[in-house]
Amino acid sequence: MALMDTAALPRIEILSTGTEILQGLYPDTNAQWMSGQLLALGFPVTYHAAVGDVREDLARQLRVSVARADLILMSGGLGPTEDDVNRYAVADVYEVDLVEDAEAVERMRRMFAGRKRPFREANRVQAMAPRTARVLYNNWGTAPGFLLEGGPGRATLVALPGPPRELQPMFELWVRPFLLERWRPAEILRTHTLHTIHLPESEINARIVDLFGADPRVNVALLASEGKVDIRLTARGPSEDAIREIFAGVRRRIEERLDPADIYGADEETLEAVVGGLLREQRLTLAIAESCTSGLLLARVTNVAGASAYLLEGFVTYANEAKSARLGVPPELLERHGAVSAETAQAMAEGVRRVAGADLGLSVTGIAGPTGGTPEKPVGLVYIGLAREAGSTVIERRFLGNRNENRLYSVYAALDLLRRDLLRRGRPA
Amino acid sequence: MALMDTAALPRIEILSTGTEILQGLYPDTNAQWMSGQLLALGFPVTYHAAVGDVREDLARQLRVSVARADLILMSGGLGPTEDDVNRYAVADVYEVDLVEDAEAVERMRRMFAGRKRPFREANRVQAMAPRTARVLYNNWGTAPGFLLEGGPGRATLVALPGPPRELQPMFELWVRPFLLERWRPAEILRTHTLHTIHLPESEINARIVDLFGADPRVNVALLASEGKVDIRLTARGPSEDAIREIFAGVRRRIEERLDPADIYGADEETLEAVVGGLLREQRLTLAIAESCTSGLLLARVTNVAGASAYLLEGFVTYANEAKSARLGVPPELLERHGAVSAETAQAMAEGVRRVAGADLGLSVTGIAGPTGGTPEKPVGLVYIGLAREAGSTVIERRFLGNRNENRLYSVYAALDLLRRDLLRRGRPA
Repeated sequence: MALMDTAALPRIEILSTGTEILQGLYPDTNAQWMSGQLLALGFPVTYHAAVGDVREDLARQLRVSVARADLILMSGGLGPTEDDVNRYAVADVYEVDLVEDAEAVERMRRMFAGRKRPFREANRVQAMAPRTARVLYNNWGTAPGFLLEGGPGRATLVALPGPPRELQPMFELWVRPFLLERWRPAEILRTHTLHTIHLPESEINARIVDLFGADPRVNVALLASEGKVDIRLTARGPSEDAIREIFAGVRRRIEERLDPADIYGADEETLEAVVGGLLREQRLTLAIAESCTSGLLLARVTNVAGASAYLLEGFVTYANEAKSARLGVPPELLERHGAVSAETAQAMAEGVRRVAGADLGLSVTGIAGPTGGTPEKPVGLVYIGLAREAGSTVIERRFLGNRNENRLYSVYAALDLLRRDLLRRGRPA
Repeated sequence: MALMDTAALPRIEILSTGTEILQGLYPDTNAQWMSGQLLALGFPVTYHAAVGDVREDLARQLRVSVARADLILMSGGLGPTEDDVNRYAVADVYEVDLVEDAEAVERMRRMFAGRKRPFREANRVQAMAPRTARVLYNNWGTAPGFLLEGGPGRATLVALPGPPRELQPMFELWVRPFLLERWRPAEILRTHTLHTIHLPESEINARIVDLFGADPRVNVALLASEGKVDIRLTARGPSEDAIREIFAGVRRRIEERLDPADIYGADEETLEAVVGGLLREQRLTLAIAESCTSGLLLARVTNVAGASAYLLEGFVTYANEAKSARLGVPPELLERHGAVSAETAQAMAEGVRRVAGADLGLSVTGIAGPTGGTPEKPVGLVYIGLAREAGSTVIERRFLGNRNENRLYSVYAALDLLRRDLLRRGRPA
């Protein structure tokens, strides 16, 4: 689909370097991240290329890219080791000397001093940049980047360090403003992602399939991962307001087809943050008891800064003795129904609520695998309990993943049980 | 570095197509997967490129690739829609007609009949391949691939469909045997990764820099991520045994330069599995008390199937009251030194050891951020305590990451403290 008017826009090429990428050790996630950012700003990318840490191979690719693109975003290869060949290849192709940038050296010295680490002379090479380039200082690591202006038939080049935690803020600080000043796009493009949990992808597809392509300004796509399904909307328009209106219209139509509670959030909202917001709003406290997920649920809930406002404490009661000693689950109950049972999940939830003095108690017990399953209680069987003053709820789930997937799906199911309960409470009677 | 005797090997380029890749919707995992497969067969890859579904852009890239590579592995763009432009771009660049392959049509008809779906005439276009190409039939989907022989200065091209569940078996069926027949590598290539923790990358680099390139059969590279540093060895040799010997020699030399305890494992070994192995070996039980990491350490320890053999239980004591009520940390101690202090970490470790009746107690308390820091106790300050019968140890760390990074680094530091302690115990006196 031709989503953009590309006439006035630069042809952009992303050039990643690193032998590990060519060896298949990991995918080229810097190219992916930058492409997504650029598209959101209204700049589609034309080419990706990746080259190993070999000066001649990189120079050869650069000669191609320099001639066909208006802007090259290069990442990696700016460090102090033998493998870091990018500055040399750029100097070769742009036929320019490398010179040391005094401020870059000074910044490196300060960074090393701040970390109480010795500054080695070998690090100085990272301050070398093409003589005619603008040095892009790096507040998140040692190697600065640089911006080298091109000319007719010669692309402008931005070189950024490879580690994502340096590349990403440097992109924000240096690349984004440069792009918007140099090539202001006439239309912008935005994405809006609705997060759903519980309904399978095929069910969502069947309910909203007629909305795919119904509005030519919007693309609708389903993306399933980690047992959740995202509905991704991409729209173009002349302004943020115009796009917001388009998204609101599509969202309304989607909500008519699904239960609104099936959509737990949008864009950056996480399930744990949504649950945290509801707990804060309703001024409720929570305590957690985990068995098979053993800390994952607690870790997830506390992903949210400020979770201490509602999470009182948690117990990982792996062994039956711990379930009894910490949560007061009667040994006879464990004996009769087993540690993985609705009865145990309920007793754990009620126990942790009582022991911690919390408004709500949430529990998980199950068989994550790979071993421990039986014909009656297979791997993937999980019980989740929720205790509140008015009584308790237990749900049973049978997941079909591996150990880690089953643990993750259990965490999401527990958070979703709590979320739906809080939504019902929050509603006016 | 010239790792392979590449004279006899083809220069391979992987060319992926799909606008979604250029939009950053997902990373180029086909290029990653094929690169890993090729490397294991002894064929390093020189270039990756990705292009959107635009015929002219793809033809332009193909002209570059055809001239510089001996073999191009192209994926995607073979389906029946407007977006599927690959066969046309190939025909343009190789200057060859497209013709319909009768067997490919017949196979598609049979596949549709088998799936009880009507065969639409629009599907026939997928049976079109360059006149001089060999058609690569697809048992896993509708679109066949093709193999077009090159010549002097013109790369041979293999076109495969994009869906991984079709591409991967087709690579096995068609590409692998073709490669091994055409360019039988005299040597195979293997990787061996040593995992280190604690020493910074620059320090490791300084200690082993003379081993980079010391043996022309081995490439040594450092990869830092998540606060750990991997030393990745890539070697070529005539056989598995020969390569194993090369790796053993380099590893010995690296171990002479580092404290052997700095290397916690190799290849697929994880820190938590190594710690679990030591605990099992020494028949010791563990209990854990977490504050700022709030479940992450427990979740990590129980990543290992069978962790219930040594992990008794865990407490997430976020609030001071929980630290006192569950672990017996005296309120006066919390009052005097604060929840984030060496004294509290020690009291938590000793408390959880006693309460759980475990051989070892491990604790973490710190300030993960983004808020909660003070000039004396900044964000990233973490104390880790380890209690055993013979006494307790506390270490202090100051991490410089964001909330999630600080939590993760704390988990690694806690596991590493435990690992080093177990190593010392395990050594003959």
